[in-house]
Amino acid sequence: MTDIKTLALQCRDASQVLARLSSAARRDLLVSMAAALDADADAILAANARDLLAARDKGVGAAMLDRLALDPQRLAGVADALREVAALPDPVGEVTRDYARPNGIRVQKVRVPLGVIAMIYEARPNVTADAAALCIKAGNGVILRGGSEAIHSNTAIAAALRRALREAGIPAAALTLVEDLRRETMLELLQLNDVIDLAIPRGGEGLIRFVAEHARVPVIKHYKGVCHLYVDDSADQQLALDLLVDGKVSRPAACNSLETLLVHADIAPRFLPMAADALRARGVELRGDAATQALVAGVVPADEADYAAEYLDLILAVRVVDSLETAIAHIQRHTSDHTEVIATGDPTHAEAFVHALRSAVVMVNASSRFSDGGELGLGAEIGISTTRLHSYGPMGLEALTVERFVVRGEGQVRG
Amino acid sequence: MTDIKTLALQCRDASQVLARLSSAARRDLLVSMAAALDADADAILAANARDLLAARDKGVGAAMLDRLALDPQRLAGVADALREVAALPDPVGEVTRDYARPNGIRVQKVRVPLGVIAMIYEARPNVTADAAALCIKAGNGVILRGGSEAIHSNTAIAAALRRALREAGIPAAALTLVEDLRRETMLELLQLNDVIDLAIPRGGEGLIRFVAEHARVPVIKHYKGVCHLYVDDSADQQLALDLLVDGKVSRPAACNSLETLLVHADIAPRFLPMAADALRARGVELRGDAATQALVAGVVPADEADYAAEYLDLILAVRVVDSLETAIAHIQRHTSDHTEVIATGDPTHAEAFVHALRSAVVMVNASSRFSDGGELGLGAEIGISTTRLHSYGPMGLEALTVERFVVRGEGQVRG
Repeated sequence: MTDIKTLALQCRDASQVLARLSSAARRDLLVSMAAALDADADAILAANARDLLAARDKGVGAAMLDRLALDPQRLAGVADALREVAALPDPVGEVTRDYARPNGIRVQKVRVPLGVIAMIYEARPNVTADAAALCIKAGNGVILRGGSEAIHSNTAIAAALRRALREAGIPAAALTLVEDLRRETMLELLQLNDVIDLAIPRGGEGLIRFVAEHARVPVIKHYKGVCHLYVDDSADQQLALDLLVDGKVSRPAACNSLETLLVHADIAPRFLPMAADALRARGVELRGDAATQALVAGVVPADEADYAAEYLDLILAVRVVDSLETAIAHIQRHTSDHTEVIATGDPTHAEAFVHALRSAVVMVNASSRFSDGGELGLGAEIGISTTRLHSYGPMGLEALTVERFVVRGEGQVRG
Repeated sequence: MTDIKTLALQCRDASQVLARLSSAARRDLLVSMAAALDADADAILAANARDLLAARDKGVGAAMLDRLALDPQRLAGVADALREVAALPDPVGEVTRDYARPNGIRVQKVRVPLGVIAMIYEARPNVTADAAALCIKAGNGVILRGGSEAIHSNTAIAAALRRALREAGIPAAALTLVEDLRRETMLELLQLNDVIDLAIPRGGEGLIRFVAEHARVPVIKHYKGVCHLYVDDSADQQLALDLLVDGKVSRPAACNSLETLLVHADIAPRFLPMAADALRARGVELRGDAATQALVAGVVPADEADYAAEYLDLILAVRVVDSLETAIAHIQRHTSDHTEVIATGDPTHAEAFVHALRSAVVMVNASSRFSDGGELGLGAEIGISTTRLHSYGPMGLEALTVERFVVRGEGQVRG
């Protein structure tokens, strides 16, 4: 088996070839990759059946099995997603600044690929195709290190995608699947800071912390989403209720779901009983402070841990606050830097909220559930960064590039 | 002495205050900081005299003593630099994208401060003021960890700057000088990835590698500049010679100076003897391949180490190449991702060179010495990144911010 450093160096060399392709050539390549998935459907589904069998033997739970499972329709969806990525605008070559200096040199900032991206992820085999497509669309080589549960599926998907690369005359190393799943090999990969430009872990908080703590390569982290909704005294109550129900109930396991509700004391006596009825009708448990308990019967007392919790479940922490400032201070103390929402009828309060909070996404009178690459119009999403560096919030293709300088002169010197 | 984690947490709290100041308030604050340096000039110069005395006692060399030394004129220059930073456009709040989605939500990307920046640097005490000014201008808290040689100067400068913060009603912790210079304390600082958003090491490669290898916080690295000039067969020879002499001779110790010259074989017989005369007249030693040696007498044979070297001295590695492609391949193998230059009269060759190379700065017919924040119009420079993440190349104020999403709706939900 080739050692991981050699694989990474081969990927880097191949990434130079990818980076020099035209936009049209990279688009066509992704369309061919989609066709290769379609052509290999039988082999991929057979490999997936082996993974599912092994997972059942190991007694894996139903939710995990569902994440792991492919069927003809799901696989066709994966191929279609590649065609959608193919059709997205190319971020590479975009000129983001263009100006002349007094000495006549012309300075541009131009997007270039990052280079080599290592994706570390868990059981969903579709990530193998999705992540590879996004990295390659932006001109990057990609090293994929998936979970052992999906190894046969991942290998079959990677084989199809690599065939498409080879048929386009590109070294298959541009898309490298790590087949050696030993932990020490992953650790070795994460030390290669002269070869790998970025690692993106996708999965549970345990995986992300493991990668972040052991990596010498740069890592973009998404720890968790403790998303807040603050209902201002000036809020339209029906609007606030809509945001609350959508944010908490439409997909509680998503990281952009609401975990904490803060309500201004002046509106709480009317809003909280109404909100409690609406949420309880949908199975939501409420945990609140003394003021909440005084207004709504049967609320479980909340402690500090509740205000820090990412429940990912039908549970909501609630607190009554005496002012916008108190709401902001609460969020500043407990923020996960993911998404915060204000429901308000007062533009001054909206702007104060936006200005005071530096979370990746701040919403005014819109649901936290829009905190998503697709919903924000990025076309696709490779992750959500809660790291305030390089990319912050939902990451699309642009986040897989960096701006560099191109300078054109007529022989100017500095002297 | 307060432990480093407590200091860092205090700096983070104070950074929230800084981030909420208006642009005008932050501008005024920097002007006050400059005035405080002027007011404390006697105390700062006395402290600097203590550092110089100690350095002389330790037998520190003349170059290092010069970097360490302040005098009334240099200190006035440091204060003036703060006034220049004060006058720069504020990157915070800049809207870089603004669009509506089909459901009517309006999405903006808006620059916010990074949060807390740790500067790790060596002997120049002016960095204490320069780096603090840039971080604070962009709304960030800053933790300064300078070298032991400058501790008295740094302490006196920080005391002046912190007084200006306090007088403006801002917690002085927004600018924190680490007085405990033990290595284990620096290591502890570099582990605080929940508090510190970015570490920027400035100094020799040893310091940068130490920080990069031990940090769990994100680090922007600038390792070295092995800058190349490729003289194309279509180049104007006088223009190429001007770029060569300026790039090699005007400040050989700067990271944007040329280290390697690549010359197309068709132009080498005329260009190289002329170039050798011009460079040798300025004291430059040439180390070249066999083809170079055949064209110029007395050239030292170059080996692979010469083509990887950052001499920072009056030495130049030279190679004759048979094509643009060979020049590109040479640079791809030896690049430090800093700055590459092509001298050419052929626009197709220029674009091929720009497209193929992903170095932080690529120049066409302009001197490598323009690879500098001031020369590129950034107004100031906090470092030069050779890391292809977040910021790449000379870093100005913008690099001390990150774009986040602000979404405004009228009650839209995802459902």
